[in-house]
Amino acid sequence: MTKKPAVILLSGGLDSATCLAIAKAEGFAPYCLSFDYGQKHNAELKAAARVAKALGAVEHRILKIDLAGFGGSALTDATIDVPVGGGKPGEIPVTYVPARNTVLLSYALAWSEVLKADDIFIGVNAVDYSGYPDCRPEYIASFQAMARLATKVGVEGSNLTIHTPLLKLTKAGIAQKGTELGVDYALTVTCYKADFEGRACGQCEACRLRSAGFANAGLADPTRYQK
Amino acid sequence: MTKKPAVILLSGGLDSATCLAIAKAEGFAPYCLSFDYGQKHNAELKAAARVAKALGAVEHRILKIDLAGFGGSALTDATIDVPVGGGKPGEIPVTYVPARNTVLLSYALAWSEVLKADDIFIGVNAVDYSGYPDCRPEYIASFQAMARLATKVGVEGSNLTIHTPLLKLTKAGIAQKGTELGVDYALTVTCYKADFEGRACGQCEACRLRSAGFANAGLADPTRYQK
Repeated sequence: MTKKPAVILLSGGLDSATCLAIAKAEGFAPYCLSFDYGQKHNAELKAAARVAKALGAVEHRILKIDLAGFGGSALTDATIDVPVGGGKPGEIPVTYVPARNTVLLSYALAWSEVLKADDIFIGVNAVDYSGYPDCRPEYIASFQAMARLATKVGVEGSNLTIHTPLLKLTKAGIAQKGTELGVDYALTVTCYKADFEGRACGQCEACRLRSAGFANAGLADPTRYQK
Repeated sequence: MTKKPAVILLSGGLDSATCLAIAKAEGFAPYCLSFDYGQKHNAELKAAARVAKALGAVEHRILKIDLAGFGGSALTDATIDVPVGGGKPGEIPVTYVPARNTVLLSYALAWSEVLKADDIFIGVNAVDYSGYPDCRPEYIASFQAMARLATKVGVEGSNLTIHTPLLKLTKAGIAQKGTELGVDYALTVTCYKADFEGRACGQCEACRLRSAGFANAGLADPTRYQK
């Protein structure tokens, strides 16, 4: 039997690599989609390519898109520093990119329509949605409702599903799950300040969450750090 | 009093130019957004710049985005011919671009968040929504519901509104409205096969709808045609 195609949003970090492994384990043929959106940590795109290859993606596309043009985030705006520590509880981090998940999911929807795929995977999770509005479950549900009306199949009645298998998992839970599925996390890059070789700074918020995740899961941290 | 900012999706055609004129007449400060998405009729981007200037946009941005990469439409895929006549009634035209309005509205949402604008204008209309899934009123309502959850202000409670002032107008009604508001339609380009100077072919579906619109409104057609 032919496997059903699914579009997987793949940043090259720990979460999206795990998400890809889950989609594959669930029997989907993975079509991975990454974005070059002017992020400072471009090393993650190389990581995405490594991860897509290692986990057997049918196809991996990198779209160059322009989000930096609008500014407003430490990840795309060179005038805002990436914070070393975490933000205040309940506050939206300055690393939030305006409407990012909406833009990325919209492209995934476009590709899914061309592929005739009913399934899109995005690796948002419980840790993220404490701060980012577009990681919340009610947001994802609302995007899915919109997406079912947005396309050709939407006219007939769409089964399009936005899968968020990490939504209720902690970083430790994600690291545990991916390890069970054979993900090689040494291939992934999570750090906001990774160097050209993809080595992590070990100090930014993303690094702290990631290393705590491995520690809490009782796993050795395979991350490659800058000296 | 400072005018409220609004993001206007501006393709450079008859509809979006009218939409911009309406937003301005309603007292908004217009921030116009156009896209270079690999469309064959690039002349419309020059038209968008002319229209934005003529109608007093506060700012006009052209984002280069990649929709052609996915293929699937006569407007972006060089292997599909743009049809000369119209499609069959009830069928989705081959000129439909996968999830186009979802992608474009997502960028408008991103910019609106940075501008702290609560208002987005898009020139979808009754003629379009007969064939395009992402021009239907239920789709627009659903996008607005999603957008209110997607952004920073969405966490507090968003008033974001997707304005579709042309939704129930025919082409004749749109041409009439814009003429009342002083739109110079000679500046606009609607044709799918416009030449480098923005002159229309007079034969494609877009040209036929447009010229019938002027005729039905009892207006002279200001369109510049090829030979």
